Amino acid sequence: MADRRPDRLQALRRALDAAKLDGILLTSLPNIRYLTGFSGSSALLAVTHSELLFVTDFRYDVQVGEEVGDLARISIERQSLWDGLWRMLGEAHSVELMGFESAQLVHRDFERLLNAGSRWQWRATVNVVEVLRERKDAGELALIADAARLAGRALEHTVSGVRAGMTELEVAGALERALRDGGSEGFPFETIVASGPRSALPHARPGSRRIERGDFLLVDFGAIVGGYCSDVTRTFVVGRADQAQREVYEVVREANALASRGVHAGMTGRDADALARSYIEGRGYGEEFGHSLGHGIGLEVHEAPRLARTSDATLPPHAVVTIEPGVYRAGWGGVRIEDDVVLDPDGPRILTDVSRELLEIG
Amino acid sequence: MADRRPDRLQALRRALDAAKLDGILLTSLPNIRYLTGFSGSSALLAVTHSELLFVTDFRYDVQVGEEVGDLARISIERQSLWDGLWRMLGEAHSVELMGFESAQLVHRDFERLLNAGSRWQWRATVNVVEVLRERKDAGELALIADAARLAGRALEHTVSGVRAGMTELEVAGALERALRDGGSEGFPFETIVASGPRSALPHARPGSRRIERGDFLLVDFGAIVGGYCSDVTRTFVVGRADQAQREVYEVVREANALASRGVHAGMTGRDADALARSYIEGRGYGEEFGHSLGHGIGLEVHEAPRLARTSDATLPPHAVVTIEPGVYRAGWGGVRIEDDVVLDPDGPRILTDVSRELLEIG
Repeated sequence: MADRRPDRLQALRRALDAAKLDGILLTSLPNIRYLTGFSGSSALLAVTHSELLFVTDFRYDVQVGEEVGDLARISIERQSLWDGLWRMLGEAHSVELMGFESAQLVHRDFERLLNAGSRWQWRATVNVVEVLRERKDAGELALIADAARLAGRALEHTVSGVRAGMTELEVAGALERALRDGGSEGFPFETIVASGPRSALPHARPGSRRIERGDFLLVDFGAIVGGYCSDVTRTFVVGRADQAQREVYEVVREANALASRGVHAGMTGRDADALARSYIEGRGYGEEFGHSLGHGIGLEVHEAPRLARTSDATLPPHAVVTIEPGVYRAGWGGVRIEDDVVLDPDGPRILTDVSRELLEIG
Repeated sequence: MADRRPDRLQALRRALDAAKLDGILLTSLPNIRYLTGFSGSSALLAVTHSELLFVTDFRYDVQVGEEVGDLARISIERQSLWDGLWRMLGEAHSVELMGFESAQLVHRDFERLLNAGSRWQWRATVNVVEVLRERKDAGELALIADAARLAGRALEHTVSGVRAGMTELEVAGALERALRDGGSEGFPFETIVASGPRSALPHARPGSRRIERGDFLLVDFGAIVGGYCSDVTRTFVVGRADQAQREVYEVVREANALASRGVHAGMTGRDADALARSYIEGRGYGEEFGHSLGHGIGLEVHEAPRLARTSDATLPPHAVVTIEPGVYRAGWGGVRIEDDVVLDPDGPRILTDVSRELLEIG
């Protein structure tokens, strides 16, 4: 695959020019990975107009050479990463006004900028790199598609073995093993397996509850391939679905279909959200769709853009977003159907290739 | 189990008195869980001398009632948690000087304190709740012991099925499934399965490398029970160990044993670290033990106290710490042996009940 890092750095430097910044200090690990390829858990990156200054700790001594190579000046620290940053930044020329990531720098480290970093001026920025990350290139799209496929196969494999009497934890374990066997590098978020009334809790951890016949079984999880995430939800009925379950399922399924077919680059996040919300409201379930329609996915499982009533921003082409309408009724249960969708310039393309029909399993 | 939350709040309020604070805003989710029992992923908590003000979002509407109950005034927000905070704090009496968590508040939210929160004075604090969390009560110790036992059984079950030719990912999948089947609520950190030369990378993600006869196989993982973590590492040899492997293993095993037996409340983190380091240095491997000896575990898998050359702090009684010496040689491999140890007042008690002998497996 072509090395896209130089293009990304060039785009970042154009953004720095536009903001009249001499450089930017990055503390967000996904942003650092996007620009350098580094996949470890400890790093600082300063990008100036002429240099990349990269700091990590001794645990990543070997890895940083393999992943970052000669793209950056690299400092390996045994104590604090900040020591290496101040040393390298002190040697940089023509750097006075530096941006920092206001949403990814804790107050304690912000104070370091004002103290040890007082010879530079610091300006808060938000979303400088995140905006670049919204538009995926071909290599990124291929990885997200792989992650979506892997998740789909793991789900199908797992569901074929689900029976009444299993616990939510056992289902989670079978699913996570299938993800690993398929090659997932990790889990982008805590797997949700929620049965019966617990399916009404949008963020339920799997527990020791035994699945009963007649339960909804809601499964929300993802895979990671080459650092890129997928995020999928399906809701099943164990045994036979009753009429109320069929009706709610059908509302959510239709909302998912309307939004997945209708979402496109150029519309606002609010208008995308409305594709599903208007339909659900029209069917009388508006109060029971409490969350927003979706979010971008990529190196992070929640990233820009947002598909929500409160989002005026326009969806860019080549973004990948989730479409995940849901209807939840406390004490009874809930249904969510979630797909990953690429906003190709000529229309939406659904990556999640798992049936959306109501499946009665077990 | 007795509700220990009132005791914890009383201890926190004593700390606020000592710091002459009228209250504290908590943004660390583990700290919020410790004080209120809330296990969700979105919350703010303000503790004043007379009240607890708790804010979460609509996703946790049901859960917050079950977990927090009437311990706090609760506000459920659809947009920003901060709206609810300012509203409730505005109704509080005799609150002028508030602490905040400098290491757990990003700059963007710090600016909220200065703007929307400008009618209060704000003072940066560090480790106010973390210090309370160092000393575990009987209920916490029981949960960590359960998590350590669960991890031990899952490891033994998994290792019995490891064969040359399996990938690291497959071993991770089998282990994670065994953890789920044993009841683990999640994974406290990304499972490390590193084989052959990759065992020299202290933070290797499992990959598609096939395990070969003669490889080291390093496995570092944990379980979660009732929110509390365990953290264990074992290093195996697949097939027959050679002389160099035996020698390095024996050095690490002896360092682990010396430190696990010698660590006790009242010593500094530096002196604890030296229990293992002096021995490893004496055997000529000092340069190859690059990280510190260990860290506290509890609601977080890395918490206070630290067992490190740079830590002057005294280890308190009833802390639970990891003892994890290692020796790593780039390109060849590495060995780490990690146990969880309670610092009982009358001496250390090892929770990890898995053999520390060199096991030749597969």
